[in-house]
Amino acid sequence: MEKIRRQERRIAITKILVDHPSQLFSLSFFSGLFIAAKSTVCEDVEAIRIAMEQFGLGKLETVSGAAGGIKYIPFQSEKRVEEILLDLSTKLSAPDRIIPGGYIFMSDLVFNAHLMSPVGEIFMNRFIAAAPDYVMTVETKGIPLAYSTARAFNLPLITVRSGSRVTEGPTVSINYVTGSSRRIQTMSLPRRAIPVGARVLIIDDFMKAGGTARGMVDLAEEVGATVVGIGVLVATAEPAQKLVKDYLPLLILQAVDEHNKITEIRPAGRN
Amino acid sequence: MEKIRRQERRIAITKILVDHPSQLFSLSFFSGLFIAAKSTVCEDVEAIRIAMEQFGLGKLETVSGAAGGIKYIPFQSEKRVEEILLDLSTKLSAPDRIIPGGYIFMSDLVFNAHLMSPVGEIFMNRFIAAAPDYVMTVETKGIPLAYSTARAFNLPLITVRSGSRVTEGPTVSINYVTGSSRRIQTMSLPRRAIPVGARVLIIDDFMKAGGTARGMVDLAEEVGATVVGIGVLVATAEPAQKLVKDYLPLLILQAVDEHNKITEIRPAGRN
Repeated sequence: MEKIRRQERRIAITKILVDHPSQLFSLSFFSGLFIAAKSTVCEDVEAIRIAMEQFGLGKLETVSGAAGGIKYIPFQSEKRVEEILLDLSTKLSAPDRIIPGGYIFMSDLVFNAHLMSPVGEIFMNRFIAAAPDYVMTVETKGIPLAYSTARAFNLPLITVRSGSRVTEGPTVSINYVTGSSRRIQTMSLPRRAIPVGARVLIIDDFMKAGGTARGMVDLAEEVGATVVGIGVLVATAEPAQKLVKDYLPLLILQAVDEHNKITEIRPAGRN
Repeated sequence: MEKIRRQERRIAITKILVDHPSQLFSLSFFSGLFIAAKSTVCEDVEAIRIAMEQFGLGKLETVSGAAGGIKYIPFQSEKRVEEILLDLSTKLSAPDRIIPGGYIFMSDLVFNAHLMSPVGEIFMNRFIAAAPDYVMTVETKGIPLAYSTARAFNLPLITVRSGSRVTEGPTVSINYVTGSSRRIQTMSLPRRAIPVGARVLIIDDFMKAGGTARGMVDLAEEVGATVVGIGVLVATAEPAQKLVKDYLPLLILQAVDEHNKITEIRPAGRN
């Protein structure tokens, strides 16, 4: 009987941890939930940690002290990351994705939760050392990826809007120049969305000249926040000189040959 | 040794299933991954099913036949659903959320992944019998919730845009009248986003008169799709007559008293 109960407890703890990435659970929480001694829960957690690491499925982090506990940190092996990025490159280079003007149709991929969840986890691992306390993106196509990144981090997501909306209360706005089409646009943020001194990670789906990312950096600085990283799913190789200095692309769009329907896209090297 | 290996395998299988809601995995997949007999994997799956159901953490569905396998279906007990909705009501009724004009500031909540993931699972359970094959929303604030719903269902998400964008290729657009402010607006959808005959579930964060939802219904019908359900996180009690007939709200916003800073909001009854 005890053996069965232990098994079921471990399955249940695994389920709860995986469903709440980066969220700290105290041992007392599980001990109360399953009416088990803390030492028993400790053994359970140890078994889960070993199983996850053995199969490269994630990490369990122990936080010690009175306010301590455990949390599940999503993690993918370098090999798995490579597979995910190669798969995305292949999907994006399908000839029928080429849109007049040399753009690529990406909406179905960037709104696919089963594709974007692992990519959000990749960004989380790349930026974990930067210790952000907010993830920021701009509407619309970057939202699912930024949301997945925020979920992996267990951080709030701030979505910058085009124009200012009546339902948001007081807003802070800036004008910025889109790097590729050189048009002047406005982006804005609810004044209350972000506190002074916040550490912000910017996530977006696509970067060409970097004008939109530049706008987000300016907006973050305008409200007294610090940008600690910029991650983009796809960056174009040209122009090589972007309007932001440090950014981390996962895929590089080398060229789109509209005439011959050939798209060259590849995983970016680690930097 | 065998005992330890079984434990670790069950933890690993639980992790993989929970990370991919509603995705079908064949027994051969796990049998290959862990170099274990199919009968062994069957026992593992049975143990996981029992543990999940015992603690109300979800369901495992078995699909039989050659193309069969198992999938994890997110599920929350009615008691848990009530707790989630009461918690959201309490958060939304905080006096400092009231914005001039009688609106409520919701952005921080609707972009919070740890809050919206379970709500997406609630919608998934409420609409599972409608058997949608696409989830649809309109930019911007409904996206995280619709994305979470699509993740729980393992369905593609279609995001309707305001205006039409050059990077989307050919689009279908309609004009609609916002129910509350009576302004004419345009919404559009990439022509290739949705096939004729698709069954569409509409998810949004807020409904007042229902003009936006009405627009999405018209747009879906315009491309030959059928709307099989409409779910909104918050619907206002007034106007009682909405521009769409059947919709399922999770919370009802009864009244916002700007002067006395009182918001009346409550979970909607089951219908």
